[in-house]
Amino acid sequence: MKPLEGIRVLDFTHVLAGPYATMILGDLGAEVIKIERPKIGDDSRGFGPYKNGESAYFANINRDKYGIVLDLKAEEAKKIVKELVKKSDIVIENFKPGTMEKLGFSYEEFSKINPKIIYVSISGFGKTGLYKDRPGYDMIVQAFGGIMSITGPEGGPPVRVGTSVGDITAALFSAIGILSALVVRDRTGKGQFIDVAMLDCQLAILENAIMRYYIAGEIPGPLGTRHPSIVPFQAFKAKDDWIVIAVGNDNLWGKFCRAVGREELIDDPRFKTNPKRLENYKILKPIIDEIVSQKTVDEWLEIFLKAEVPSTRINTIDRTVNDPHVKARGILQKVKHPVIGDMLIPKLPIMFSETPVDIERPAPLLGEHNDKVLKELLGYTDEEIKSLKVKGVLG
Amino acid sequence: MKPLEGIRVLDFTHVLAGPYATMILGDLGAEVIKIERPKIGDDSRGFGPYKNGESAYFANINRDKYGIVLDLKAEEAKKIVKELVKKSDIVIENFKPGTMEKLGFSYEEFSKINPKIIYVSISGFGKTGLYKDRPGYDMIVQAFGGIMSITGPEGGPPVRVGTSVGDITAALFSAIGILSALVVRDRTGKGQFIDVAMLDCQLAILENAIMRYYIAGEIPGPLGTRHPSIVPFQAFKAKDDWIVIAVGNDNLWGKFCRAVGREELIDDPRFKTNPKRLENYKILKPIIDEIVSQKTVDEWLEIFLKAEVPSTRINTIDRTVNDPHVKARGILQKVKHPVIGDMLIPKLPIMFSETPVDIERPAPLLGEHNDKVLKELLGYTDEEIKSLKVKGVLG
Repeated sequence: MKPLEGIRVLDFTHVLAGPYATMILGDLGAEVIKIERPKIGDDSRGFGPYKNGESAYFANINRDKYGIVLDLKAEEAKKIVKELVKKSDIVIENFKPGTMEKLGFSYEEFSKINPKIIYVSISGFGKTGLYKDRPGYDMIVQAFGGIMSITGPEGGPPVRVGTSVGDITAALFSAIGILSALVVRDRTGKGQFIDVAMLDCQLAILENAIMRYYIAGEIPGPLGTRHPSIVPFQAFKAKDDWIVIAVGNDNLWGKFCRAVGREELIDDPRFKTNPKRLENYKILKPIIDEIVSQKTVDEWLEIFLKAEVPSTRINTIDRTVNDPHVKARGILQKVKHPVIGDMLIPKLPIMFSETPVDIERPAPLLGEHNDKVLKELLGYTDEEIKSLKVKGVLG
Repeated sequence: MKPLEGIRVLDFTHVLAGPYATMILGDLGAEVIKIERPKIGDDSRGFGPYKNGESAYFANINRDKYGIVLDLKAEEAKKIVKELVKKSDIVIENFKPGTMEKLGFSYEEFSKINPKIIYVSISGFGKTGLYKDRPGYDMIVQAFGGIMSITGPEGGPPVRVGTSVGDITAALFSAIGILSALVVRDRTGKGQFIDVAMLDCQLAILENAIMRYYIAGEIPGPLGTRHPSIVPFQAFKAKDDWIVIAVGNDNLWGKFCRAVGREELIDDPRFKTNPKRLENYKILKPIIDEIVSQKTVDEWLEIFLKAEVPSTRINTIDRTVNDPHVKARGILQKVKHPVIGDMLIPKLPIMFSETPVDIERPAPLLGEHNDKVLKELLGYTDEEIKSLKVKGVLG
């Protein structure tokens, strides 16, 4: 059994923030019915990499979902949507602001049909406030929300986090909202509306940056690989490549100094405690640079492993994927896609002892489950489906 | 009513991944009882910024929790823990691997006392695999998991994401796991064990990077602010500062060209479609650089806003915090801390229509709720509490 067995999700989402949220729900065992527009489908079917003409980007994020195609502007499609709403537990969308309302698919409309419905709307700036009508892009909220201003080399050009954390964190908070609303509904029998703004989520992951501004009057800037309050805790250049060393406390400082054969540094009053090392960073940094440059990454990793000093190579993706621990962990699952073939997909990173959540199905081809959903779930006849197809309602 | 009212969380966590997860549960209305060690408490009470001797770092992440102090090695403390386990729904910990087992606090032990308990263990590398005994640090998993290799300027030094996404994503997935297990328990009456590895979570947020390697044989590298598959979608240097422009599709390309007065570019065969713009990036980039350099950020923002081209300044934290939309949105809540005074704290970024989750209480002072928890929840007498204090069990 999976955690969300018996829960049905009506999925109007596209690209990343919404689809990542419904991916989580699908992996958790919910029956996700993803609705795509005719011919083109989800925009992310146009994002690379491709194989045999199919997008691996789409196939990655949309596993464990069923897919149907509907021309949502057609009256017949609206009727189908409303029949589906009656039989669903959750509705989720991340259209441009106003789109669902224009289609007649607002929470108000849907909750009239099904008062138990939980309806989640993900947008760039949220459903309230001055910018509520602006479209949301990961790039925009990363820049607007402040994370871009604290990511990058010191004094260097701005840097975007290399993965779309603006979308992905909104997806994660949406999943938390949905699951919470399910817990509530089990008690009260009532659904509700949930408004998740990508921008709000960016503020929520700033760790202590807002405190540094509001409490300490500081405007945090980018620090390369440095941690703002722990030293030494960053990447250093070894003989051949970069190595990350994470001396998280004073005990580890002792281990580090012994491991590199510089015991005299341990009790050096300039470096004895973390506050001192932070204060004297500019003196300490070149000393450690000089030490680390003497050996290769592999040599250091062996030394630090024995000395129990946390350290690692900066893995490129190929190294991460092929690492023996990652393999043993089973977090990357081989999934066979009917067109792409073998894919290696990161599972939901939650290892449940009683309700494991391996991926069950590859992503749907465009409209793959039209017949299944219309027949089995809504009781449409072959004749009716044929007529809808002729009219273009089903793409 | 809040979503998790009536749910009790026994919180053995420290620093960030664990405390961020219990922060979410506390904000959602669960009664979180955080256990800290005598005298020092959570390590993050030593992280800046400080005010009046109290850590705003700690106070930010630990709002909406109750705090008690226990010397977990003392037999009396173990007895108290077991009494608390009987009365709790969730146990969560992120100690160094093996610590809970050594204390006699494993899932096996706790589930004997309370078979309904949901027990979440957050670690750097997980409970299985070759590196399961290694401690986890955000810096280590960011470097090991690949995100560091795709974040940073092209050809530049490595860059850490400026906020601890290694910890925070593990916290978010843990919250999802816990809520899912609650849904399961409502049906089956049984708890379970959940193993969340920070490293697994880093793999899960790589978007399409694993696909680019596994499907396309590419090793993704850092791209500065560029998006790997959309052009133009990055930061450009205006006359006075950087501006982010996000031309997410061909329709927006037309709007962009008209807005900057360069209509002839719209149908230029080199730039007409996104695949073409991606292919001819090296020709297009200097053209846009030249255009954008002609005006200031403020001038461009006004033009792009009218033209409906998504764009933004790269806000520093002060600008984000003081933005009128952010203020109108109410995502930053003023919370009065008894020692620090007024704090501005990002709320849980989930706006529920029926069960809103404003922050209720500031973070606990060290041991603040010892008496409350021992008396009200466990029925200890003043005499017994006094005796425990004398023995140092309560710090």
